[in-house]
Amino acid sequence: MSNPREDILQTTSSLMEKQGYHGTGLNEIVRESGAPKGSLYHYFPDGKEQIASEAVLESGRLTAERIRAELAAIADPATAVHDFVLAIAHHVEASRFAAGGPLTAVAMETATKSERINAACREAYADIETAFREKLLASGRSQAQAMGLAICITAAIEGGILLSRTFHSGDPLRAVATQLRALLSIGE
Amino acid sequence: MSNPREDILQTTSSLMEKQGYHGTGLNEIVRESGAPKGSLYHYFPDGKEQIASEAVLESGRLTAERIRAELAAIADPATAVHDFVLAIAHHVEASRFAAGGPLTAVAMETATKSERINAACREAYADIETAFREKLLASGRSQAQAMGLAICITAAIEGGILLSRTFHSGDPLRAVATQLRALLSIGE
Repeated sequence: MSNPREDILQTTSSLMEKQGYHGTGLNEIVRESGAPKGSLYHYFPDGKEQIASEAVLESGRLTAERIRAELAAIADPATAVHDFVLAIAHHVEASRFAAGGPLTAVAMETATKSERINAACREAYADIETAFREKLLASGRSQAQAMGLAICITAAIEGGILLSRTFHSGDPLRAVATQLRALLSIGE
Repeated sequence: MSNPREDILQTTSSLMEKQGYHGTGLNEIVRESGAPKGSLYHYFPDGKEQIASEAVLESGRLTAERIRAELAAIADPATAVHDFVLAIAHHVEASRFAAGGPLTAVAMETATKSERINAACREAYADIETAFREKLLASGRSQAQAMGLAICITAAIEGGILLSRTFHSGDPLRAVATQLRALLSIGE
């Protein structure tokens, strides 16, 4: 069953992931999604800024869900985070370095340029940080420790994806995986 | 003494830092730099891709120089990196979240879309990683340890800048500073 609204959001996420917000045009979204042009204005009357905001929120939700599912499979947070980062390295390699970090470029481009998209990026990153924080809290970390570590994990993974895509190699993410495991093993 | 070539590169770096590569147009570069339009084509006959590549290389060189200078001021690498990240938090706050991470958006936007800009981003990030690696080597880390840590430091700082700009707060970078100090204190 085709769902034009969903198709438009998924296409927008993939295009922004590959080439950023400003590099992605409405015509390209219509062409790649296969959705009729009229449906774009029907579902998103406010245009590109609205589409991008909703695509960002959906990326955030999906990413947080995936993090929760992957981390739940392994009890020890240090090993769980390590293995999750290795899985991202594999995903980035499999995409031939066009995917990974769907929020990074759009968040940087719009941090001071679009209140609406910036608000969506905050909500998305807060979802992602919360997924890591919950895992750390469940293993007995204090609120303050879990918060600091969750922010650093999110930051290092985002930066690791950036370096892996730039160098066309999963190695930077694998280095991040190793270091995060060491960081999360302190005081265990 | 005005230097149109230098003015064009600095303006391009600042604009790409704020809004990315695709969000920055040649007309805006001319207007903001104050350089005559003819000088843009004189110094950069290949156009926007050439200007962006050279701006990226210059940002990388300047950033690596700043890292070396800041890290040289404190002997202990854990404290030196911690204090350097706090200085970035201050810089991002002082810019009202429009500055910090001059390479991030452009590197993501062009990773698979422009060979020329991608090559410049690799060189720039290699310069930056090398600056951290040298500090770690000087304090007695092995090549492999220094390499892994330098990649993770670079990734966490890039991601921390992304989160600080997104949340309009220096706090994510301060959390990264604390965690990197802990990571760099392991095995000392």
